[in-house]
Amino acid sequence: MRRIGALVFEGFELLDLFGPLEMFGIHDEDFAPVIIAEGAGPVASAQGPRVAVDARLDAPPPFEILLVPGGRGVRREVGNARLTGWVAEAAKRAEMVLSVCTGAALLARAGVLDGRRATTNKRAFDWVVRQGPKVDWQRRARWVEDGHVITASGVSAGMDMSLAAIGRLLGKEAARDAARQAEYLPHCSPEDDPFARAEPAALRG
Amino acid sequence: MRRIGALVFEGFELLDLFGPLEMFGIHDEDFAPVIIAEGAGPVASAQGPRVAVDARLDAPPPFEILLVPGGRGVRREVGNARLTGWVAEAAKRAEMVLSVCTGAALLARAGVLDGRRATTNKRAFDWVVRQGPKVDWQRRARWVEDGHVITASGVSAGMDMSLAAIGRLLGKEAARDAARQAEYLPHCSPEDDPFARAEPAALRG
Repeated sequence: MRRIGALVFEGFELLDLFGPLEMFGIHDEDFAPVIIAEGAGPVASAQGPRVAVDARLDAPPPFEILLVPGGRGVRREVGNARLTGWVAEAAKRAEMVLSVCTGAALLARAGVLDGRRATTNKRAFDWVVRQGPKVDWQRRARWVEDGHVITASGVSAGMDMSLAAIGRLLGKEAARDAARQAEYLPHCSPEDDPFARAEPAALRG
Repeated sequence: MRRIGALVFEGFELLDLFGPLEMFGIHDEDFAPVIIAEGAGPVASAQGPRVAVDARLDAPPPFEILLVPGGRGVRREVGNARLTGWVAEAAKRAEMVLSVCTGAALLARAGVLDGRRATTNKRAFDWVVRQGPKVDWQRRARWVEDGHVITASGVSAGMDMSLAAIGRLLGKEAARDAARQAEYLPHCSPEDDPFARAEPAALRG
């Protein structure tokens, strides 16, 4: 059983957090989430719904996987030295570090991505790049794996990244089974990034 | 501005609820969610994370869209006459009624689907069918629209259904924009149901 320490802050993006926790949660005999925040919560997402907090930054339980979502709140939290300091320490201890969307900016500001390849979402790409000048940013990638650190591009890409992580930890059949149970048709390759092109066919008018 | 009354109960499926609320939430000038539950909450999902409750069944605020997720808790809640009675009344007043996955079983037990075409997820299909003998169940469909009632198949299909609903309410370009911002490649047709076939190519070993 691996515990997933999922960091939340006011203005986190709903699907950045809950897309991955759905995919991992399908294998609930292997993964257990813990929602971690600076305060006691509940913490409001960018879309409004509030999540209850299981543990505070100053007393987190042990966990093996660190998950950092993005969302509009990241613009504020990159300046929160207590939070980025915690991320730096937590990432050192974790077996695997995952970010979704602009969550990569928090990893970057914590120094976790220095010297690594990483990605983030398309719409805030240039801003995120400025948070990590020592990072080898990949503009075209559904997700990027560099050792134990995996960064996903925008929002929905977090589900694909999570399936890739499940594949590494439990095997490919476990990842396929999670996708099947969620009736989710995954992007199975990190290079399969339709949003890096001009416009995906499915979204043409 | 339309309010989305999102019903939750212990054991709701994370992505059934938050996939749709992500898609609607991208247009937060047009949609505002309200999390509604029988008790004061917070309410634990099937995957563990708990959502805070905005309003209780006995004092809900007005809303235009009713959203009913599925999840393992549905097996218990189909026998909760207070809950299904509330769903029946809420569905009568709503401009649009949406369910995801086994959430259709709650609509069925509330009588909302009687005489209508509807769908649900693949893995609990036969059980859900037994909850609504007067429903015209569609085994192959990513989602089914019958008037103001839209039912989605399993988990991830809720995102496609939500984009279809956004398309109906705000126009197709608004739906495409939500998909783009979430970097989500949608199933754009209700007949595009890869999980009704033997095995989607992406999930073959």
